[in-house]
Amino acid sequence: MAVKKGKQTVVFQKKIAIEATAAFVGKKEGEGPLKDYFDTVVEDAMYGEKTWEKAESKFVKNTFEEALKKAGLKNSDIDYLVCGDLLNQCSGTVFGTREMGVPYFGIYGACSTFGEALTLGSILIDSGGGKTVLAGTSSHFCTAEKQFRFPLELGTQRPPSATWTVTGSGAAVLKENGSGPVIESATIGKVVDMGIKDAANMGGAMAGAAVDVITAHFRDTGRNADYYDVIATGDLGYIGRDLAVKYLAENGYEMPSSFTDCGIEIFDRKTQDTHSGGSGCACSAVVFCGYFYTLLKESKIKRMLLVPTGAMMSAISGKQGESIPSVSYAVSIERQ
Amino acid sequence: MAVKKGKQTVVFQKKIAIEATAAFVGKKEGEGPLKDYFDTVVEDAMYGEKTWEKAESKFVKNTFEEALKKAGLKNSDIDYLVCGDLLNQCSGTVFGTREMGVPYFGIYGACSTFGEALTLGSILIDSGGGKTVLAGTSSHFCTAEKQFRFPLELGTQRPPSATWTVTGSGAAVLKENGSGPVIESATIGKVVDMGIKDAANMGGAMAGAAVDVITAHFRDTGRNADYYDVIATGDLGYIGRDLAVKYLAENGYEMPSSFTDCGIEIFDRKTQDTHSGGSGCACSAVVFCGYFYTLLKESKIKRMLLVPTGAMMSAISGKQGESIPSVSYAVSIERQ
Repeated sequence: MAVKKGKQTVVFQKKIAIEATAAFVGKKEGEGPLKDYFDTVVEDAMYGEKTWEKAESKFVKNTFEEALKKAGLKNSDIDYLVCGDLLNQCSGTVFGTREMGVPYFGIYGACSTFGEALTLGSILIDSGGGKTVLAGTSSHFCTAEKQFRFPLELGTQRPPSATWTVTGSGAAVLKENGSGPVIESATIGKVVDMGIKDAANMGGAMAGAAVDVITAHFRDTGRNADYYDVIATGDLGYIGRDLAVKYLAENGYEMPSSFTDCGIEIFDRKTQDTHSGGSGCACSAVVFCGYFYTLLKESKIKRMLLVPTGAMMSAISGKQGESIPSVSYAVSIERQ
Repeated sequence: MAVKKGKQTVVFQKKIAIEATAAFVGKKEGEGPLKDYFDTVVEDAMYGEKTWEKAESKFVKNTFEEALKKAGLKNSDIDYLVCGDLLNQCSGTVFGTREMGVPYFGIYGACSTFGEALTLGSILIDSGGGKTVLAGTSSHFCTAEKQFRFPLELGTQRPPSATWTVTGSGAAVLKENGSGPVIESATIGKVVDMGIKDAANMGGAMAGAAVDVITAHFRDTGRNADYYDVIATGDLGYIGRDLAVKYLAENGYEMPSSFTDCGIEIFDRKTQDTHSGGSGCACSAVVFCGYFYTLLKESKIKRMLLVPTGAMMSAISGKQGESIPSVSYAVSIERQ
């Protein structure tokens, strides 16, 4: 039975454990500073398939299978799948999971999807409607560039504010009374539109949603940044993180140096040229499922606030002069 | 506190009332047999906007506002928005709701979205995480044809198996201990892929998902078709409905003549040439929010099973030779 705290936060009453996670990534991610934390590095962007889209679905299929395997569960043990991705009609996750035969909730939160999946998955379990949820997402540099920006073959120059879409998939098995780190509460974001129209400055567009949900989380719970060992946004990158620090200070919250962003963590700024950092649904998913989950399991950190961030524009909305609305979810995870 | 029944069904323990609904439709829908049940008929496909996509978002904005007004509520009274649509990155609902300032769950279930929204909205309330949810969706004939099929300007001939995407938006306000018809239970569908690759035969592609979820609902609850005054699928159309009747009989369930489809109800087969019927996220949403909700309120029917159906393909997946996976949700609604 969940308890609403303040206007936007739900505190879970059951022990919703993250029983296991899996993170599969592409070559570039596998060369970054977190390389040792991923289950598998797939060197081939096509993953042996004929198209990038089929490769992305294969990431989903294999990652979700690995997460289940690590949790010692099979498809029939799972009450619900909660998943989605960036591709039109969320086809990365649909095609990657269509053979599983598990009741399905498709979601769309752009790059905030992993946060939305953890939140809804926890609510499903806390409601009593199920005991086990598989929450996951994916993204792929090539499918995202093709769909949202330019044909890769053009070799279009990327501006310094651009981020690099992470190739990979992350999945987490949530289990009532399981043994892993526990999802303690979640703050559900509102759609925030800062009026930014530059699709090559997603960090700027999403900073407002991240600030809004972190502020709501602090307000609803009475906490501040000191409560957490780590607060990590999803894919604001360097530019978005700096904006978020500035806006949060204006809201009265000074953020410590442990305030980071998954898009900053995943690539090495000096040796890997990704400009403002990593992005994509998989960014926060693989960084959490690979890196932070390991730190939590090993008690190197005890409390973290994961804040995946999503820019909700489409290729068409941008061409029609629309700005970029964003949304974000703040998920509080504790080592108990 | 929800109770899981069988493998796929959740029975709600709180009284989750559909406090109010709103249904806005386009010109063609406003000329059909249900015209008197809609709140507003918008004659102009552009709704005074410069693009079809902006028109669709205006449908969302005005319909959601009307539903709230009829419920006597304002934005700040709503705990969560649960919504989605067919457009790439669900931009119809994102842009239609971005000014509301309500915690947001974006979902993607293709044309099953309204069923998924009612289901997740009910789970959110039953979990204790909130008391009031606005669930809604939209579709637009012109945005859907442009995105999934051919430029409308080509005047491409439609095959007899094709359905006509409904233009409009439907929204329902769910409220704990409210006064309207009650959502009693919901059965969550699995993704089902029958191997159909013809995007002009969506009814055929989706029939399997509808049959699967209706069979699961009957199995989990011990009910059969006699329990309900009306069982209505979302947008199978004539071809899909006939297939569903056949498959359900093979599963041991003979369906009565009251087994219908929202895509059959919304257009007149003789005077409105839509071939196999209506479709789109808005199809089941406006037929329920306009027509069936009124029948329930007036006690002309007392129990109905609403079964929105979704085909989860994208324009790209079809071109890459993929078949059309489908999903469906069965929502049991009672006049108490």
